[in-house]
Amino acid sequence: MSSYKDSGVDIASATHAKQLMAAAVRSTHTPAVLAGMGAFGGCYSLAQALGSHTADAVLVASTDGVGTKTLIAGALGVYDTVGQDLVNHCINDILVQGARPLFFLDYIATAMLVPEQAAAIVAGVAHACRTAGCALLGGETAEMPDVYRDGAFDLAGTIVGLVTPEHMLPHPAAAGDALLALPSSGLHTNGYSLARRVLARLGYDARPDLLNGQTIGEALLAIHRSYLPHVEALWAADVPIRALAHITGGGLWDNLPRVLPEGLGAQIRRGTWPIPPICELIVQEGGIAEHEAFHALNMGLGMLVVVPQDSVTAALQTVPEARLVGEITGTPGVELMSTNHAQLG
Amino acid sequence: MSSYKDSGVDIASATHAKQLMAAAVRSTHTPAVLAGMGAFGGCYSLAQALGSHTADAVLVASTDGVGTKTLIAGALGVYDTVGQDLVNHCINDILVQGARPLFFLDYIATAMLVPEQAAAIVAGVAHACRTAGCALLGGETAEMPDVYRDGAFDLAGTIVGLVTPEHMLPHPAAAGDALLALPSSGLHTNGYSLARRVLARLGYDARPDLLNGQTIGEALLAIHRSYLPHVEALWAADVPIRALAHITGGGLWDNLPRVLPEGLGAQIRRGTWPIPPICELIVQEGGIAEHEAFHALNMGLGMLVVVPQDSVTAALQTVPEARLVGEITGTPGVELMSTNHAQLG
Repeated sequence: MSSYKDSGVDIASATHAKQLMAAAVRSTHTPAVLAGMGAFGGCYSLAQALGSHTADAVLVASTDGVGTKTLIAGALGVYDTVGQDLVNHCINDILVQGARPLFFLDYIATAMLVPEQAAAIVAGVAHACRTAGCALLGGETAEMPDVYRDGAFDLAGTIVGLVTPEHMLPHPAAAGDALLALPSSGLHTNGYSLARRVLARLGYDARPDLLNGQTIGEALLAIHRSYLPHVEALWAADVPIRALAHITGGGLWDNLPRVLPEGLGAQIRRGTWPIPPICELIVQEGGIAEHEAFHALNMGLGMLVVVPQDSVTAALQTVPEARLVGEITGTPGVELMSTNHAQLG
Repeated sequence: MSSYKDSGVDIASATHAKQLMAAAVRSTHTPAVLAGMGAFGGCYSLAQALGSHTADAVLVASTDGVGTKTLIAGALGVYDTVGQDLVNHCINDILVQGARPLFFLDYIATAMLVPEQAAAIVAGVAHACRTAGCALLGGETAEMPDVYRDGAFDLAGTIVGLVTPEHMLPHPAAAGDALLALPSSGLHTNGYSLARRVLARLGYDARPDLLNGQTIGEALLAIHRSYLPHVEALWAADVPIRALAHITGGGLWDNLPRVLPEGLGAQIRRGTWPIPPICELIVQEGGIAEHEAFHALNMGLGMLVVVPQDSVTAALQTVPEARLVGEITGTPGVELMSTNHAQLG
């Protein structure tokens, strides 16, 4: 007699995981959530979402994953932060279009489901959702023997947000506009394959001088920041944001041009913002060239904000940790400049 | 000198995959899509979505995957059907809440990205989206060495649909209501771990008599059906649907009770609907007990439809392939009855 459990899929284990997750999921629910966990589809009231907005609003959606940061989490046995990484990454992606989050759905898959680990992952997802006023509307946990390596798991998710047409970003940037950076907390969710290879010989428990007492594992697990509070503060202060660029896979080179008008580029001055020690460490240990480093890692540039020059002072007063790092230029391409050169130019 | 590619992540390969996908993705776009591929977040016009509906509509969202059906696809080298499985599965899930699809986002992850394979997967996703009038609004492809086994990939996705409050399902079913079944095409997306283990010794190329000339591989890859056309036909014919139950993971036992009022159950008569040959084969080869078979497999019951008894004739005329398989009862639990017993009762 065969059973489904013999095949490596344990439905009881999935049920147990769902029970452990239930309270965290419910804690994210607002009156807009009409049906959540247990329903075939999560139901979200549009009237609640729209509030004072009219029905010409625009839904903005994005799907992403946290990459091999899951392997660091597994190696350290820390499961409650990668969910925050995932949600914050997605929040930042739709923020680039000017949207605020409405709801989120997560996807966790692994070779063998450990209910407590899955529940910790979802607790992280729920924590970040709650912080952003975003409902965790649904999700899926999958147990896939023969697809995933032993002990490995993947974590992906989808966010849906809302923006009114007049708030949609980007607005066209102009040559001469200022480029501000909101600092990252570390690698966020990109560059982990590179980081793991380069730092393997040191080990996650090592505390290299560069990290000021942190272990490599702790530095690698630093939570992806959400820039929703910063951008909301800028909106509240009426700083006219022209464009936002979330520096993710492909780094500065690939992500900033995505939000600039055809024909425009940017100059960024080295040394005008803090590079996270963990990025410095990877560059040093791996002998990574600068161009490659800014392709694989965010190098401290978590989110770039394009504002008119005459709004720079107001922006920096509103978000003190922002840094003026460069400006938009009339020629395509993104260039890193030495500070002296830029001052002379 | 290290580079990101040496770490097993090839950004150029991802870019190539995106180029191959672009036409398929665009083919799903309607005027409602304001920003699609290349944007940080896909943008979808709510005014277009609402059409003649008012802003009290409800968004319905669901995330799911296709499980280890990806392994069969990989073994057979057939990559353009699993995307259809995924989309149709998600369409059926939100249909259970009464919702029609608006847009979809996919997530493909693998140990090493093969652009042509990823493009074929997305072509399948796009085909099913187009068929359903659903925009493929975004997606993510991830290359994760050390998380996925060599040659394996995972495929998950998220659908967002819309329903007006008066069309939200389920409506409360009543004891005595009729239970109709819309036939499945095979396993759909559940039970693949069991199927692979039980059928391994026969091989995917085998053509057992039971399959009438089909290979096991072909039967296992049969595309998950979308029941949107059937349900739309029932709506158009004013058949009052009380509830729909999509028979997925956990089978008949777990899924039908999810849409019935507390205290109600169902009796289903054996032999009143066709069991797909591939299900029969798994049951025979694996010596699977009936209860376990209806837990791990849909056994031909793709979607169950609860309608009042006086609507059965109209429903069967509208959807000729539907079968009257049983009825709702006043006691909790789902029971399989022999045909004779039910006729005597």
